[in-house]
Amino acid sequence: MKVKSSAAANLAHAAELVLKARGLGAEVVVLPEMFCCPYDNASFAANAEPRGGRIYSALAEMAAEAGCFLVGGSMPERAGESIFNTSFVFDAEGRCIAKHRKAHLFDIDVEGGQRFCESDTFSAGEAATVFDTPCGRLGVCICFDIRFPLFIRQYCDMGAKALIVPAAFNMTTGPLHWELLFRARAVDNQLFTLGCAPARNRRADYVSYANSIVCDPWGRVRARASAREEILLADIDLDECERVRRQIPVLKN
Amino acid sequence: MKVKSSAAANLAHAAELVLKARGLGAEVVVLPEMFCCPYDNASFAANAEPRGGRIYSALAEMAAEAGCFLVGGSMPERAGESIFNTSFVFDAEGRCIAKHRKAHLFDIDVEGGQRFCESDTFSAGEAATVFDTPCGRLGVCICFDIRFPLFIRQYCDMGAKALIVPAAFNMTTGPLHWELLFRARAVDNQLFTLGCAPARNRRADYVSYANSIVCDPWGRVRARASAREEILLADIDLDECERVRRQIPVLKN
Repeated sequence: MKVKSSAAANLAHAAELVLKARGLGAEVVVLPEMFCCPYDNASFAANAEPRGGRIYSALAEMAAEAGCFLVGGSMPERAGESIFNTSFVFDAEGRCIAKHRKAHLFDIDVEGGQRFCESDTFSAGEAATVFDTPCGRLGVCICFDIRFPLFIRQYCDMGAKALIVPAAFNMTTGPLHWELLFRARAVDNQLFTLGCAPARNRRADYVSYANSIVCDPWGRVRARASAREEILLADIDLDECERVRRQIPVLKN
Repeated sequence: MKVKSSAAANLAHAAELVLKARGLGAEVVVLPEMFCCPYDNASFAANAEPRGGRIYSALAEMAAEAGCFLVGGSMPERAGESIFNTSFVFDAEGRCIAKHRKAHLFDIDVEGGQRFCESDTFSAGEAATVFDTPCGRLGVCICFDIRFPLFIRQYCDMGAKALIVPAAFNMTTGPLHWELLFRARAVDNQLFTLGCAPARNRRADYVSYANSIVCDPWGRVRARASAREEILLADIDLDECERVRRQIPVLKN
């Protein structure tokens, strides 16, 4: 989705899109990283809310109204003196069943390219996060987390068959590494990887690469969005993981 | 190089190619996995020799005669009752300075694709292997080893700035994963990766994907051979690793 400056407008628009995706048959819907506010440190601080606040409650309502699992992209979560980049996950009744706090903060400074320092605002989470659905066990991490092969291996060890990643790569790291990392983590851990990014907005401070993506356990790209706002639908069979793991037994090895 | 059935012919041909590469300016020369015999279990057993045998001695001579570092692809190394898939590394005086025994044996069975069981013949090595050159510290692993992100991280932790991988992917795993894995390990560990494969021989039992490759710490392909025999030359600056590690500080993180 294309993210605007008003949190209220983003919440209303997200609610429409979740219902529309559900209408198209989606059983698990994923929103992008920071779907509720622009991706910059000032907006993070201005929009930070505790669990149970307006953004959290709107997400719970979206899931219940649509009647589907919802990985609520991410939002700035205030907890005491700290702010986290947090993804809340809701079941089809709108109950929160998981929470992932981004464990690796995005602090980069590429010469002639992207500069950003998330740790100016955010504190880092600590753990990998999985949750159960009738389709199987899924994992959720956020954006920069996917760069860490030992961290992502934990999801595999915890039994996740698909790794859902709200993420916002940029116009430097996106062309270099977006597809590569989603394909690589899929092959390393023989699971599905799903990246959901904000649509590209060239007038924003931080320009999202977009290109939401679904990769299978062979590392093949199964579905890929453009840079514009769209609903990317993918039918995946989590049993495919076991078939790949039997044929190339790297996890056993 | 294209591997033939006769070990003597392969050794003579390898010696020519090493000299030719040195003449083109190479300071470190790499031969492919099982450069000395066809890639099948019967040939492994028939050509197995201990350290100090004919193949080992020929490699030492090649390095000394050319006056360059030589990563001697790999050979079946007999050690007591065991046979290992081993890469011996020699300095410019022909002294053996490192030895890597393939730590992850290639046992796969892809439906409608490649089947192979290295553990029918080989025993597995245990450790990651690095060695020092005037250009900096390099690592060597063999083929299937590159699929293991936690194992490869050890090379990074041990200070390797380039990972050299004698390897022979096949016509199933090559198109799927060859480039992906070399690019991914380069990005994961912010070092150079270099894969050296036998040329493709469609009449062989096991058909090598070939496509020898050099990737930089950004995960970009710097040089890539075709499926035919050729000398792939690449000029790399190991200081590039530190520049990438500073700009995207995932190793610090």
